[in-house]
This record gives sequence, structure tokens and C-alpha cells, in this order.
Amino acid sequence: MTQTAPSPVHPVQQRYADPATEVPAQWNSVLQVLHEHKSVRRYLPDAVSPETVELLVSAAQSAATSSNLQVWSVIEVRDAARRSRLAAVAGGQAHIEQAPVLLVWTADFARLRQLAADQGAPLDGADYLESSYVGFIDAALAAQNAVVAAESLGLGTVYIGALRNNPEQVAAELNLPDGVFAVFGLVVGHPDPAEGTRVKPRLPRAAVLHREGYDLGVQRAAVAAYEQRIGELYSDQGLPFSWIERVLGRLASAAALNGRDRLRESLLARGFGLR
Amino acid sequence: MTQTAPSPVHPVQQRYADPATEVPAQWNSVLQVLHEHKSVRRYLPDAVSPETVELLVSAAQSAATSSNLQVWSVIEVRDAARRSRLAAVAGGQAHIEQAPVLLVWTADFARLRQLAADQGAPLDGADYLESSYVGFIDAALAAQNAVVAAESLGLGTVYIGALRNNPEQVAAELNLPDGVFAVFGLVVGHPDPAEGTRVKPRLPRAAVLHREGYDLGVQRAAVAAYEQRIGELYSDQGLPFSWIERVLGRLASAAALNGRDRLRESLLARGFGLR
Repeated sequence: MTQTAPSPVHPVQQRYADPATEVPAQWNSVLQVLHEHKSVRRYLPDAVSPETVELLVSAAQSAATSSNLQVWSVIEVRDAARRSRLAAVAGGQAHIEQAPVLLVWTADFARLRQLAADQGAPLDGADYLESSYVGFIDAALAAQNAVVAAESLGLGTVYIGALRNNPEQVAAELNLPDGVFAVFGLVVGHPDPAEGTRVKPRLPRAAVLHREGYDLGVQRAAVAAYEQRIGELYSDQGLPFSWIERVLGRLASAAALNGRDRLRESLLARGFGLR
Repeated sequence: MTQTAPSPVHPVQQRYADPATEVPAQWNSVLQVLHEHKSVRRYLPDAVSPETVELLVSAAQSAATSSNLQVWSVIEVRDAARRSRLAAVAGGQAHIEQAPVLLVWTADFARLRQLAADQGAPLDGADYLESSYVGFIDAALAAQNAVVAAESLGLGTVYIGALRNNPEQVAAELNLPDGVFAVFGLVVGHPDPAEGTRVKPRLPRAAVLHREGYDLGVQRAAVAAYEQRIGELYSDQGLPFSWIERVLGRLASAAALNGRDRLRESLLARGFGLR
């Protein structure tokens, strides 16, 4: 290729690894923090204070919650041995041991179940699949606010979905009562600048933003463009990766889910009805 | 009560409706935006440009996504008649008609199913309950970034979970293919200052933030304190509401779910395996 486009400098262009992306007319420090997000997998040993975690949690509680139910809770894990055991549950992710804090975000119906029992009130709606999604969504909205808050303070984070590989062990580690399910972990710490990762490009906006109705026809070209752009980035890092191969591999089979094919059974055992 | 505590001025104190909350040592404009969140249910007719929506979507795409699967999409709905029909699905929420834009966030496995079919590759992992949560979580993390981006630009938002009251009608309105499920809507517009709502207080931090392990014992006192604090706020607005009554009512029965007790059936019909 003889193309001599300028290197992508604006964060929006960087996000799509596409220097042809139009630079937005509006911009501010919040948009900057949001667009510069990177998952951090190498941390310095520097401390994160309890007060900082409290600030992340008040930011988290400021997120919307369905019907103000607030069906989530978060467990702050600092104990090194516990983090080490949870790192093992997550397939040996060393950053869980490296960073000082692991926040485990839960869908929490125990608070309301106890309240209902105290009041002698029914809570049959909690036994439906819908309610499990409400808990998961509440936890996700809250956690994402905590991520944005952390990054605004110069901290790094990475979500740990792999806690769902073994929900029973996580529940035992964290003394989770019936009705509380660990949705994901979030490592919080000071990024090691030596990690040197770049912003990960995403699918072209045309793949995810549809107007008035979903357009499946646009997906093939968008995916092909993305496969090339992210392939070039991997290549620059000496990695022979293909996005297409990776995502198809991730969802190829029950075995590829690393235990999460048992999630239904685990949720039922944790007191979720899933009707 | 003769208590003469100063009125809660710091956003963290306002979030808990508790002037005794310690003021954080760290603060910045991002934390300010996060903590000042309010759901907006009255809008001015002012336009929101397509470029602004694109900016919200690049912010959304900057959020983490499980294994970079990016199993979500968003439908931008501007057509007034379509918004009106979707407002009816959501139990007649007038703000969906009032604001110029409704973003419908979806869990999207259609993109990867088409890709797998093109490659002759299996995608059996997508048929598990786990994958539905991955899609819902991906959509929630993305949407929350869009909310923060919108609020940083002075726009208002409100989530519309009630689109799940009738997923079949929403899918028909938005031409959703098999494997795409509308998780929730998000109204975006210019807040009408005449609405005059205040920040909604949340449960005391002690109720949701646990250290090393979950503490059910702390919940009764935290809920009682909250019931009183939010009761005072409702009272100030002339509303005879009780949080306890409202949340227990919301989850009392299948009928209270307003159709969402059918969610399992709806997801199965939309091509989600839920194994």
C-alpha cells in the first residue's frame, strides 16, 4: 500500500484504528477518559486506599438501577491469599495477585429476600430469569461507573469474567449467601507503564450503530475491515492473531466456555429461580 | 427533630442524602459528572445531532467487552411514529415520545452467527445461558459509557427496561434478526429544567460495599436508615412513598413483572439457547 494517511491521533480515530474517521466537533475531559480506556494487565505494587475504593463505590451507586431496586453489592478483596486463590479460579490471571484490590461485583437478591421475609411479604418476581438479568445489568452499570471513576484518577482496571468459571468456589471465598451471585471481578491498581499496550480498536461504528432497524447486510464488510485493522495492530506487536479466529474459538463449543456452560446449574444452586 | 446539620452540599453527601458522609480528598470533573447523574423524564424538543449520537457510540465502544467479542449493537430510533409505538410497549412512557432520540441497546449474536456460518465454523458456545449474560453485560457496559458521555455534554438520559415487557413487538419494530435481543432502551435529549428533580439518594455505602466477604447482618440497619432518608425526600415532594413498599411491590409476583415473566420464552424465540 502506498497510502500516506496521517497516523490516527484523535482518540476517536485511534478507537477505530481508522484515520479516516471524522474528528468530532464536541470534546471534553470526560470524553477523553472514556475513549482512552485500556484494560490493564500489569500493575505496580502501589497502594489504593480504602477511601479511593469508597469513592469508586459512590460513583457506582450513582449509576441508574432498575426501578431503584439496587440489586447489587460489591466485595472489596485485599487479602493476598484470597486474591491468589481467586486468580487460580480465573485461570491463573497474575494481575489479580499483582494489583492491591479486586472488586467482585455481585447480583444481590439477599438484601431484598431478607427484607421480604422480615415483612412477611412475597418476592416471587425474584424467581424469574428476568430478575437475574436485572441484577446482572445493575451490577454492570455500577461497575462501569467505577471503571470510569478509577481511570479519571489515573488508576487502571480489568474485568475478570473468568470468576464465572467456578461460581461455587467464589461464593465460598466471599461468604456469599443464597441470592448473591458474583457477576465478574474488577482489578484496580496503578498501571505499570512498562506494559505499553495501546488502545484496542473496535469494530467500525457501522457494525454496531443501526438506524431505525437492524442491518445484517452491513456486517460482512465491517467485520472484514476490522479483521484487517486489528490484524495490522497485532502484527505490529509480533502477534499472529486473527480476531475472527479468536472470537469463533471463544464460542466454538461448551468446552471453550471454561466451565461457564454450567452457569445455569450454578445460579440455581445459588438461589436464583430462572423461571 | 431539632438536628441542624448543614444541608448536604458535596455530591457524595447528596448521593447518600447524608450530610455526615465524609467529603472525599480526591475530586475531578469526571467524578462530578458521575455523581450528579439523574434520570431525566421531561425533555425539551431540541434536536440531538447524528454526530452527537455517533460520539456516544464511540464512547460506548470504548468500554470493555468480554474477550473482545463485541456482542452488542445499538439501534438509533428517531422516527416519531416508531418512538410512539415503543412508548406504548413501555407502558406509555411519554418521555420516549418527547425526546428526539431513543437508543435501543441489544445483545447481538447475529453478527457472529453469520460469520460462523460463512466460515463453516461451529458456534455452540453461543447457545448457553452464559452467552446471554455476556451479551447483556456487554450492552450494559457500553450503554453506561454512552450515558456518561451524554451527561458530560449536558444531555439527559433515562433507561427503558420496560422494552422487555414485549420483546416480540420491539424485535418487529426494529427488524431484529434471530440472535439479537433488545436489552433496554435509552432516551437521549435535552433535559427540561422545569422537571426539577433532585439526585436520587442510594442505600448507605455500608449496604453495598463489603470487605473480604459478604455481610448480611449489616443490611437491616442500612435499609432502615435508607427508608427514612428517602422517605424524607419523597415527603418534601409531597409523595407518600416508601422504598420498602415499592421494591417489594415491584418483585411481589409474576404479574408485577409486566410481561417480563415471559422473558425466557421470548429469548428462546429470538434464537438464544439458554442451555
